[in-house]
Amino acid sequence: MSSNTAAKHPVKYAVVLYPGFQALDTFGPLDILNGLANHSPISLDIIGPSLDPVSTNPLPRPGVQRNQAVSQSVVPTHTYDNPPKDIDVLLVPGGVGNRDPRVLEPVSKLIQDLYPGLQYLFTVCTGSRILAHTGIIDGRKATTNKISFSEVASHYPKVNWIEKARWVVDGNIWTTSGISAGIDGMLALLEHVYDKEIADRQAYILEYIRNEDPSNDPFCGHTE
Amino acid sequence: MSSNTAAKHPVKYAVVLYPGFQALDTFGPLDILNGLANHSPISLDIIGPSLDPVSTNPLPRPGVQRNQAVSQSVVPTHTYDNPPKDIDVLLVPGGVGNRDPRVLEPVSKLIQDLYPGLQYLFTVCTGSRILAHTGIIDGRKATTNKISFSEVASHYPKVNWIEKARWVVDGNIWTTSGISAGIDGMLALLEHVYDKEIADRQAYILEYIRNEDPSNDPFCGHTE
Repeated sequence: MSSNTAAKHPVKYAVVLYPGFQALDTFGPLDILNGLANHSPISLDIIGPSLDPVSTNPLPRPGVQRNQAVSQSVVPTHTYDNPPKDIDVLLVPGGVGNRDPRVLEPVSKLIQDLYPGLQYLFTVCTGSRILAHTGIIDGRKATTNKISFSEVASHYPKVNWIEKARWVVDGNIWTTSGISAGIDGMLALLEHVYDKEIADRQAYILEYIRNEDPSNDPFCGHTE
Repeated sequence: MSSNTAAKHPVKYAVVLYPGFQALDTFGPLDILNGLANHSPISLDIIGPSLDPVSTNPLPRPGVQRNQAVSQSVVPTHTYDNPPKDIDVLLVPGGVGNRDPRVLEPVSKLIQDLYPGLQYLFTVCTGSRILAHTGIIDGRKATTNKISFSEVASHYPKVNWIEKARWVVDGNIWTTSGISAGIDGMLALLEHVYDKEIADRQAYILEYIRNEDPSNDPFCGHTE
């Protein structure tokens, strides 16, 4: 690649969904992409375990009672077995569902398979648990949400977990803290890929006040 | 009702979706309900024009080009023609789709039919356009997002539009400003229905710093 060639902007985005994905982890970043799509030729694929709609309800577990009466189901375009080709940016939301081996194993395998071809890998909240499970971030910096921080970090001690972080960037891997941190992280990724003006524009459309400092993590050490 | 009877907490929530609904208008509030469901016996129904998944892409319009390659589709549980009975709280997101008469007319009719039975009606962003179209808020206070404020207000001059407002409450009608204001508004509604502790708990889970002042609207008069 000649030194005069501008870095290619990512065009092909994809998000991995699984039963028990966290809605706002997902739709914060995706609504930013919805806005970006109005003036950029980007695309988005949605990867599920099958082509059936994927629910925010986790897979039922014996002995675990939970209220199943509030959920949302999203239609995938691709499956783990047949993912899109040539993805530039892969988004991985968190959610209670990823504690389940029936999610953790196939999604971490998918990430392992896709990572080498990506421009960026972007996880929100406990999406970084799944990433840690792949081994890809052993020895690398990452964060996760604050509520689950100790639990996730204890399971994957080879990762250099940064607790006080709204998001962390290590090479082409972006991991954010919990839920709404995905919005700050995605806006920061847009700023990194394009410029501040484009990121600020999307924040304005969302009527969202950005946290532009990745080390500004008011929820670290916060007790309710 | 005796003075000792606590007001009944809303239990049955429903959200209206339509082609071109705004994802974050919808999933900000819904993810709060997802969290609330973990310790409250609430339910959520999703009302679409049919039982087909409802897309964030608006209905195609002749002569209007737009990038259709980034969208998300959500599965409804009910239809406008056969909505849930006994809804306590109806949520109406905004979105570019509601400018289209093929959305505006049926959704406003649905709201007109459902409103008398509701405990609360809650709109986000230009969801208040649809509400204004019903006539229900003639002479009442409301807000909408800031980008479309002048346009919406000019079409429905009988409404007492409050421009500088993150959200407005008039009786049992809650209308919020744009997109992420839905999160602040829904947290405020939770606080109103339950108490501050429960609302703050959900904000903490979302790692979201609340704007608790409805008159604090940093996007009013803001130019990009």
